[in-house]
Amino acid sequence: MRAIVTTPPERNSVQLMEVHKPEPKENEAVLKILKVGIDATDREINDGYSGVPPEGSPYLIIGHEAVGIVDEIGEKVKNVSVGDFVVPTVRRPCVQNCLNCRKGETDMCTTGDYLEHGILKLHGFASDYAVTGAGYLIKVPEEVKDEAVFLEPLSITEKGITQLLKIQERVVWKPEDVLVIGAGPLGLLATMVLRLKGFNVLNVSRNRVESTKAQIVRDVGGEYLDERENPLSTLGKKFDIIVEASGAASAALECCELLKSNGALCFLGLYREIQECDDFGKIFTNMVMGNKVSFGSVSSNKKHFEMGLKDLLEIKKKYPQVIGKLVSRELTPEKSSLAFKSDFEEIKTIINFQK
Amino acid sequence: MRAIVTTPPERNSVQLMEVHKPEPKENEAVLKILKVGIDATDREINDGYSGVPPEGSPYLIIGHEAVGIVDEIGEKVKNVSVGDFVVPTVRRPCVQNCLNCRKGETDMCTTGDYLEHGILKLHGFASDYAVTGAGYLIKVPEEVKDEAVFLEPLSITEKGITQLLKIQERVVWKPEDVLVIGAGPLGLLATMVLRLKGFNVLNVSRNRVESTKAQIVRDVGGEYLDERENPLSTLGKKFDIIVEASGAASAALECCELLKSNGALCFLGLYREIQECDDFGKIFTNMVMGNKVSFGSVSSNKKHFEMGLKDLLEIKKKYPQVIGKLVSRELTPEKSSLAFKSDFEEIKTIINFQK
Repeated sequence: MRAIVTTPPERNSVQLMEVHKPEPKENEAVLKILKVGIDATDREINDGYSGVPPEGSPYLIIGHEAVGIVDEIGEKVKNVSVGDFVVPTVRRPCVQNCLNCRKGETDMCTTGDYLEHGILKLHGFASDYAVTGAGYLIKVPEEVKDEAVFLEPLSITEKGITQLLKIQERVVWKPEDVLVIGAGPLGLLATMVLRLKGFNVLNVSRNRVESTKAQIVRDVGGEYLDERENPLSTLGKKFDIIVEASGAASAALECCELLKSNGALCFLGLYREIQECDDFGKIFTNMVMGNKVSFGSVSSNKKHFEMGLKDLLEIKKKYPQVIGKLVSRELTPEKSSLAFKSDFEEIKTIINFQK
Repeated sequence: MRAIVTTPPERNSVQLMEVHKPEPKENEAVLKILKVGIDATDREINDGYSGVPPEGSPYLIIGHEAVGIVDEIGEKVKNVSVGDFVVPTVRRPCVQNCLNCRKGETDMCTTGDYLEHGILKLHGFASDYAVTGAGYLIKVPEEVKDEAVFLEPLSITEKGITQLLKIQERVVWKPEDVLVIGAGPLGLLATMVLRLKGFNVLNVSRNRVESTKAQIVRDVGGEYLDERENPLSTLGKKFDIIVEASGAASAALECCELLKSNGALCFLGLYREIQECDDFGKIFTNMVMGNKVSFGSVSSNKKHFEMGLKDLLEIKKKYPQVIGKLVSRELTPEKSSLAFKSDFEEIKTIINFQK
């Protein structure tokens, strides 16, 4: 079967390879893969910054945003049947099976020794067939089999927002105004989820107001600003909730000042650029005087995929065209190397394994 | 009667003045003041950085850490009686009476237009008699009338720790190791409260291991390190909980890296020194990859004073001498100007209005 493989830490190693179709163990399912989304993590792996092949394998099959059909199941599998449309979660419990992993909260693993399909010691889903524990599959209705490839990035935003709302139970709070920074898939999906919750959402990124990204924000009833014309520091407004999804350290730094008293700030990005700060103490003092909270959020667990599915169905009902607009291009596996050259206007590149 | 007054923004304006004894309105109580503690906020007011006198008054009576005896009550007062030992809370609702102020959570006021005894538009308690709303008084048993002057700073740590534990309901969590930075009154009181909760507490500050501060940490079963010999970056250990109570921006910056995954960091200080940071993005990325949270906490409300009283009684029972050790010196009102010259080994200076 076809598989998109990399050999990290080699740079730009991505290639299509012929490999053996996997077989399920007693608790596993083999999926016939329909679509796989490519994201920044996949690009980091191809750039040689991260990615670890499974033990004994010279290569790592990538891909952790996927939707497929159950093709074969192990003898003990009860929760899914052959023919079900499913989305697999990404992270698997650490070898120590820590308190959090044991409770299914693998995203909150404390040992760091977790495994991740397509990233860390487990093959990913960018192949004609892929195998994983059946307990980690989310069944999706056939009506969203195309959109379900967004369930993984959606689950990342669901986790961040769930954490934020849970954290804010610390205070009597009537949030209204939300700022989302970044209009990549995470920023746009966070905008949608927060709109469904009834918040006024302002999305700010460095894309033109005529771009598809800006259009999507407006489609779901959000407001959009081009940060190059409206720097964050000049917004003249503060927010109850901020979701930083741009991954730009400069934006992350600036938005600390844009929280209202008692507000909460969620960081979803990895801030790789070097960003100096003249006066860090001022940022902390501002947090103290306003009883403000900031936190980082990474990965997601099955609960967040389930929340994502619920919201995906609601988004599709309320804004029928909008998820489709997130797809900038769909490539065949043979053309998949193109997905690793990102351009600025791109939102999401999908690899279609049915082609 | 005698009152310790300042005339901010004039620098070093503190003086003892003869003023009229206040009279209670129908919902107020007049307190005969026993003791008042002096803290960094009082010193900031005397340095001209903050402090606003009540409308129409040329001066501000300072003092917000106090214990007294009810001397006189307004006709509608039911909750306290003449002769009760009481501690007043500090902050009063904003003029808009915002959602939080309305619910008694004045510490979480969102408008910023709150009032504060001894700080912002209300006279403080550093006078022979002082008046305040009777509903803001905490009755204290006579057995702790001396220690109760610590109830206000204790309430500040109770708030921070309560917020932290509430925030952490976001995660399956078995915290064990706690780092408290700073061995001033807040750092030492936080160490005591966290010890009562059963945590292993390491207190790090820039005081000698032979100092009274270090001794107090050991008295309550904590571990103490002199940061000059053991820089935070060399501890080789991470923590579930960090309470930053030193007010040093450099420490605040360093401790971000010392949190375990899923950990929580509470900032209690005001970070006035200018602190540069080479790579802010790295701090954010670390927060994200570990699902870590940090927050600031300021002021406190009646609930936190009540928690503080409960803990004060328990501390007194468990470690009978330790609260007394916090008192570095007790001054008469006539000598009170000495309290505004802090020295490094000092913990708390008390003004005794019964002398």
